[in-house]
Amino acid sequence: MPSISNKGKAMPQSPIRKLVPYAEDAKKRGIKVYHLNIGQPDIKTPEVALNAVKNNDLEIVAYSRSEGSEEYRTKIAAYYAKNDIEVSAHDIIVTTGGSEALFFTFGSIMDEGDEIIIPEPFYANYNGFSTASGVKVVPVISKIEDNFALPAIEEFEKLITPRTKAILICNPGNPTGYLYSKEEIKKLAAIVREHDLFLIADEVYREFAYDGAEHYSVMEEEDLEDNAIMIDSVSKRYSMCGARIGCIVSKNKEVISTAMKFAQARLSPPTYAQIASEAALDTPQSYFDEVIEEYVERRNILIDELHKIEGVKVARPKGAFYCIAELPVDNSDAFAQWLLESYDLDGETVMVAPAAGFYSTPGVGLNQIRIAYVLNKESLKKAVTILNKALKAYKN
Amino acid sequence: MPSISNKGKAMPQSPIRKLVPYAEDAKKRGIKVYHLNIGQPDIKTPEVALNAVKNNDLEIVAYSRSEGSEEYRTKIAAYYAKNDIEVSAHDIIVTTGGSEALFFTFGSIMDEGDEIIIPEPFYANYNGFSTASGVKVVPVISKIEDNFALPAIEEFEKLITPRTKAILICNPGNPTGYLYSKEEIKKLAAIVREHDLFLIADEVYREFAYDGAEHYSVMEEEDLEDNAIMIDSVSKRYSMCGARIGCIVSKNKEVISTAMKFAQARLSPPTYAQIASEAALDTPQSYFDEVIEEYVERRNILIDELHKIEGVKVARPKGAFYCIAELPVDNSDAFAQWLLESYDLDGETVMVAPAAGFYSTPGVGLNQIRIAYVLNKESLKKAVTILNKALKAYKN
Repeated sequence: MPSISNKGKAMPQSPIRKLVPYAEDAKKRGIKVYHLNIGQPDIKTPEVALNAVKNNDLEIVAYSRSEGSEEYRTKIAAYYAKNDIEVSAHDIIVTTGGSEALFFTFGSIMDEGDEIIIPEPFYANYNGFSTASGVKVVPVISKIEDNFALPAIEEFEKLITPRTKAILICNPGNPTGYLYSKEEIKKLAAIVREHDLFLIADEVYREFAYDGAEHYSVMEEEDLEDNAIMIDSVSKRYSMCGARIGCIVSKNKEVISTAMKFAQARLSPPTYAQIASEAALDTPQSYFDEVIEEYVERRNILIDELHKIEGVKVARPKGAFYCIAELPVDNSDAFAQWLLESYDLDGETVMVAPAAGFYSTPGVGLNQIRIAYVLNKESLKKAVTILNKALKAYKN
Repeated sequence: MPSISNKGKAMPQSPIRKLVPYAEDAKKRGIKVYHLNIGQPDIKTPEVALNAVKNNDLEIVAYSRSEGSEEYRTKIAAYYAKNDIEVSAHDIIVTTGGSEALFFTFGSIMDEGDEIIIPEPFYANYNGFSTASGVKVVPVISKIEDNFALPAIEEFEKLITPRTKAILICNPGNPTGYLYSKEEIKKLAAIVREHDLFLIADEVYREFAYDGAEHYSVMEEEDLEDNAIMIDSVSKRYSMCGARIGCIVSKNKEVISTAMKFAQARLSPPTYAQIASEAALDTPQSYFDEVIEEYVERRNILIDELHKIEGVKVARPKGAFYCIAELPVDNSDAFAQWLLESYDLDGETVMVAPAAGFYSTPGVGLNQIRIAYVLNKESLKKAVTILNKALKAYKN
């Protein structure tokens, strides 16, 4: 029997993957499971996007251009201009989700054995893209005690080696919900300028900034044209995760022309999804106002309720729709499994994502979980009530 | 300025890419260009697929399962059963086009420095996936004099080293149109069994087998369960290249579970495209009968007309919708550029794909071109007339 690759063996599994069979079993036993573990919002996709696909008149579902249609990229550039980001259609490559944007970026700037510094906890799939690209993730720990603020510059500089090619941030962050300040971005910009690194910013949650906080993009920073690469996606912004449309944005022409070679090899991003995504750019502001209001209310309910639980530590994040909470347990992985396998409150339980999978340093985050507030307020409140009682029962 | 990767520098460009500006210039000068260079069929997508998307009632365009929906995979398995391929939904991972299926397969079975043997000329993007995966393509030449039949077994065995992990074929072939016989597949099966290699078969043109010839899949071959990996796609079968839906099929559970880790990292294949692709499986047989009849007529016109041109060598391929033709020129690349830059017949010219880009051995195929017969019969006839006169003018 031929053997699979070492890379394939090393590819990480999703941190919640091994819990899925327990959740399925619980459902088979008639237990209702509140999913606090996933990033799939329950918010409706804007009608203007849905209708564009319903009313499409394609007779042949043909390839689009590898970089996405000129028209769509021009509209994306106009959207960025409204967000103080000055780029042209030629600085943009449309990709199959933010995932592909990250993958093309990794391939374009890093070779096997190169290193990328990422503040952890971080989006677990960064590990997958790194492994697939043969790249080594070098984590720099951001701490729950600091509400996951940017680690000190010295912490980054300690980690820089001749193989370091980039720093990657997610802003606002999955799984922390942390929104980097302008000053923090400027600090990162100074490091990458000095050490000739790329600064990759995954800004797919850009619109989800709360409490009047302003999102500051790496693309707004002056004299960073050669270093900055922005990753974006329509998935969360328009609640259309299944479209699979994202983009790479950079003023560095060599990065764009190299990423284009990867884009050409896979021919084109999906055509129907581009129709939806182009139309989504006409979503009225009222949609976002309502969505942001909804998320803020959910966040407040979630955090307020979590604060009532003895032994739970959690910050009030300013962005995205996740938080990391520390629980009064030794091992949140075992606890998450126990919630699904052995616990229910009147026939209901919750599924959470153990946070260890969001760290690449072994042994860190063992007592933490990630909670996504993508459920309606009532369900969210109910879910935290269950979590509260479960924690009490678990102690005994 | 930070530097891009060596891998990025090595990524090949599409063989026709550098001709595109010349084609655009020709169009600006008012010249009509017949495109014999592309794989985008002019055949309409089945209505059942188009309508499924138009009539979809999604309110949230959500992620699908990473491996594609159970329902869709079950229907794919039923389609294969009708084609004498016995697989279950669990042997299938739905991908974003055949491109992603190849990419996941390469990542799952090969590490940096591993080798894959591919009969050349081959689909140019195999080079891109190989470079992106750090894999070395080892070509084995199939010859125009043999109509691109499988090279002798000894030719393969000469090339096998400890780093060889797989043999990759495209059947029927792009760019040759060659359909491998059952005997040829059995020969390949014997090699991979003996040397413990994978046999990857890109069978996206399966339905396009002409003159009563039967397509024999690697998945039909007995005792090849651990070695065989089939790559498939809806792109050509249903003329929906822009959907970007394909799949990996294998009975080797380790391959599937490894490819699943790559699939999970990128979350899911596109949702709208899966709606179209699932519905496309209900396309009536009459659609295929008409399409096949159309392609056979086009092929016959193309080959008959090419045979009338002095100095042109071309076989009558039994599958797909491409052929490789040898021209009475020294350098088909220069000729293709000249066609766009300096030639027209009453305001019309043709664009062809120089074949050197389909070989990885340097200096081979320099006098060959690939022609795709994806134009209607009248245009096709006109295009060959132009080619004929152009060749005469080029000689002078």
